[in-house]
Amino acid sequence: MSHFADQLADSIKAKGTPLCVGLDPRFDMLPAAIVREHPDPASAYERFCLQVLDIVAPLVGVVKPQSAFFEACGPSGFTALRKVLEHAKQLGLVTILDAKRGDIASTAAAYAEAAFTAFNADSITVNPYLGRDAVEPFITAARKSGRGLFVLVRTSNPGAGLFQDLMCNGRPLYRHVGDAVAAWNRENIGKCGYGDVGAVVGATHRAELIELRAALPDAWFLVPGFGAQGGTAADVAAAIRPDGLGAVINSSRGITFPFKPDAADWEARIESATKEAIAALRAA
Amino acid sequence: MSHFADQLADSIKAKGTPLCVGLDPRFDMLPAAIVREHPDPASAYERFCLQVLDIVAPLVGVVKPQSAFFEACGPSGFTALRKVLEHAKQLGLVTILDAKRGDIASTAAAYAEAAFTAFNADSITVNPYLGRDAVEPFITAARKSGRGLFVLVRTSNPGAGLFQDLMCNGRPLYRHVGDAVAAWNRENIGKCGYGDVGAVVGATHRAELIELRAALPDAWFLVPGFGAQGGTAADVAAAIRPDGLGAVINSSRGITFPFKPDAADWEARIESATKEAIAALRAA
Repeated sequence: MSHFADQLADSIKAKGTPLCVGLDPRFDMLPAAIVREHPDPASAYERFCLQVLDIVAPLVGVVKPQSAFFEACGPSGFTALRKVLEHAKQLGLVTILDAKRGDIASTAAAYAEAAFTAFNADSITVNPYLGRDAVEPFITAARKSGRGLFVLVRTSNPGAGLFQDLMCNGRPLYRHVGDAVAAWNRENIGKCGYGDVGAVVGATHRAELIELRAALPDAWFLVPGFGAQGGTAADVAAAIRPDGLGAVINSSRGITFPFKPDAADWEARIESATKEAIAALRAA
Repeated sequence: MSHFADQLADSIKAKGTPLCVGLDPRFDMLPAAIVREHPDPASAYERFCLQVLDIVAPLVGVVKPQSAFFEACGPSGFTALRKVLEHAKQLGLVTILDAKRGDIASTAAAYAEAAFTAFNADSITVNPYLGRDAVEPFITAARKSGRGLFVLVRTSNPGAGLFQDLMCNGRPLYRHVGDAVAAWNRENIGKCGYGDVGAVVGATHRAELIELRAALPDAWFLVPGFGAQGGTAADVAAAIRPDGLGAVINSSRGITFPFKPDAADWEARIESATKEAIAALRAA
């Protein structure tokens, strides 16, 4: 059984980029040709995401479907989500199910079963507010089958600071969450030198990114907010360690929707946007 | 359009109890008769929960399906969850979808659409860690159709204090979250005197419950942890205001699984357990 951190490292080294493509399908932004053929949102999301996967699989090693957009379609959305995760696996991509789950122990175990068994994702994002019991069942489940998790530490949204920045015993809350992540992560380090409990750290807060990178040197960072949300390549570069590893840089809308719905060349545009994002990261 | 707080107040007054029945189906605890007829977990969960709803609907006004257990079944679990929510509505019950969602604004809006439109729940539990943007899209969506939400403030699990109890500017984190909930809730008070943004406050921390009750007099509290998790009727009584309203007291396993799988009289046992919980709350 291979260690999650090693799978991630191998995948990123093989493709030569830490870029992760986020799959956040939105019905009003889909190519018109797909909507004509698939008027049902769940079916349109599936078709669109499978095509996106085929386009980006030769270029990147990691993809991140956002559960919420599939959930908004109701039960059929979950069928689509599972097919998207399955297709990504078939293409050899490492998958991050962005679901931000968290609950008391027995319930967290059920969420972990959903993510790692029912949906067969390689990793999941987890919300730490409920404390120890909200995270540890995910870790236990992940370690049974070489999966991983990414715990929210400092998120990329404008209102994130309302609680995450509160000063607790002289340090902001997110640093306390970061310390807990560091301890969980150190329990199981892979051959690549990184562990299986990563941190979500937004690209839009550069100072925090630098501070957390120093505090958690052996944790994988999932860095959202690159591209459409305003994070630049220079901002996110702070998350990447000198070995070129340690960070998964996510871009969603900037890569998957660089076109108007009536564009005939939407596939070529997604391919170009992916290549441009890779080049921008490489230059930084 | 009726206000969520008023729906809740009317439902609790009509049944004369603040008891909420939590639906946390577990395959290994289901009645053997149901498993024989429905070897597929999703289908067994649906059958079991529909029968539980028929038993408890004459006795209580509120039910709370736990999304995680349905999610663990994969896509078919969501079909079951939707049917359970639909049946609860047909029986005139107020529904709380316990899903503890939370994400950046556009994603939170998709989760709200999932809860209030795709699954047609009357309310949802929300995780506040992502801050303002994680909660406000739920509020906006809820107010468009008379729905409500319950934001995690102080949860009932043993490891909850890891972050929730951290002292921030002289007060624990959960009090800061409580203040934010109080402000959101005050924006839209119903005729009954309560608002539509409630707080999740565990039954297992009595001192915090009393403190938060005083700080948020006009917010509905969803109080988990009564029964199997260790909270007594005397503990939870602190959440109920002098008008008999203000709290929804949840019991899940204690009510829905008071039997061994081979019990032939499991339906009668659920009915008795519900009546006993109602009586215990009334006595306290």
